[in-house]
Amino acid sequence: MTGRFITLEGGDGAGKTTQAEMLTAWLGEHGRTVVRTREPGGTALGERIREIVLHERGHVSPRAEALLYAADRAHHVQTVVRPAMARDEVVLQDRYTDSSVAYQGVARGLGAERIRSVSDWASEGLRPDLTVLLDLDVTVGRARVAAARGDTFDRLESEAEAFHETVRRAFLDMAEVEPDRFLVVDAAAPADHVQDVIRAAVAPLVGIDGA
Amino acid sequence: MTGRFITLEGGDGAGKTTQAEMLTAWLGEHGRTVVRTREPGGTALGERIREIVLHERGHVSPRAEALLYAADRAHHVQTVVRPAMARDEVVLQDRYTDSSVAYQGVARGLGAERIRSVSDWASEGLRPDLTVLLDLDVTVGRARVAAARGDTFDRLESEAEAFHETVRRAFLDMAEVEPDRFLVVDAAAPADHVQDVIRAAVAPLVGIDGA
Repeated sequence: MTGRFITLEGGDGAGKTTQAEMLTAWLGEHGRTVVRTREPGGTALGERIREIVLHERGHVSPRAEALLYAADRAHHVQTVVRPAMARDEVVLQDRYTDSSVAYQGVARGLGAERIRSVSDWASEGLRPDLTVLLDLDVTVGRARVAAARGDTFDRLESEAEAFHETVRRAFLDMAEVEPDRFLVVDAAAPADHVQDVIRAAVAPLVGIDGA
Repeated sequence: MTGRFITLEGGDGAGKTTQAEMLTAWLGEHGRTVVRTREPGGTALGERIREIVLHERGHVSPRAEALLYAADRAHHVQTVVRPAMARDEVVLQDRYTDSSVAYQGVARGLGAERIRSVSDWASEGLRPDLTVLLDLDVTVGRARVAAARGDTFDRLESEAEAFHETVRRAFLDMAEVEPDRFLVVDAAAPADHVQDVIRAAVAPLVGIDGA
């Protein structure tokens, strides 16, 4: 079984979408079947949940938000990620458990351990083979997002700067605890350079020589 | 503070709605403000979740379903139940944690302890002052539902008979473990008689004499 599960993490504006596109193209050129997906979302049920957590008008209680993300994860892992891995495909996913821990567990103060525990139960313990953390200065990331979208932030994106600093720190702390799973990349570097660093880490994982 | 939290549990067709209506009227006659609510649902967010868990076409993974119920509970307890209790009102709720434990924990095999733990986290540990369990033979309950609605079952109601037998047994087991919180009533008795038994248990709780 050569199915692989690779996740992309990092704040908004760090370039997750661009890097995922470049990596998908490269894996395709090397004959690998890639399933690009995201959380929240990635299934019909997930899109309904995504609609609630990102665009619900008015207050959503923090624990409800965390549990909605976990529900999305349970369904997504069971119906998308595990079947793709069983078909020996490469799953490339935008955000996973680490995002829940960083945003809900740490930044919203619900407790990193509790959030990881709920998430692990939801996914029946599925851990990524590799997690690429695109690390970027918060001010730079937010400026990129604003430039790309013309200043329309969704509910999470419009949280205060300090919140995003806390999230960034949480991701870096996790990477320090699990250095074998995490690849931390400086996302301020040119996109091509970032991509080279990612490919070098992915190549041995998917059996591609001379990346 | 005289706010009270009373939950109604039991299988479909046991008469929860009828009993809640009668109890609400009686409490109102005695000058108590009653908030009648239900799970899933009871808030705008909850109704969206209810729509997903009860009427989603196609498969919903069991853990996703359990987590959606928990998300609904978190939001509902924080925005409806606790504020009403703080106003010294009586919250009368159709289904709560015990339903999650019976349906998802026991009947779906996700584990009673895990489901109760997630639910307790969602509600920040809120336990009912009284839980009325309307206990009824499964075949009788299902016949009542079919007669009332003309045989249109929603997704949960159309589960096999054995599933509902397991749910019934799970409720009765919980009542045995927490006899002080549970009032088990034979729901096959006439509605007026069932109501008398419930009022006798509720009266001291809300300070009504001579019920």
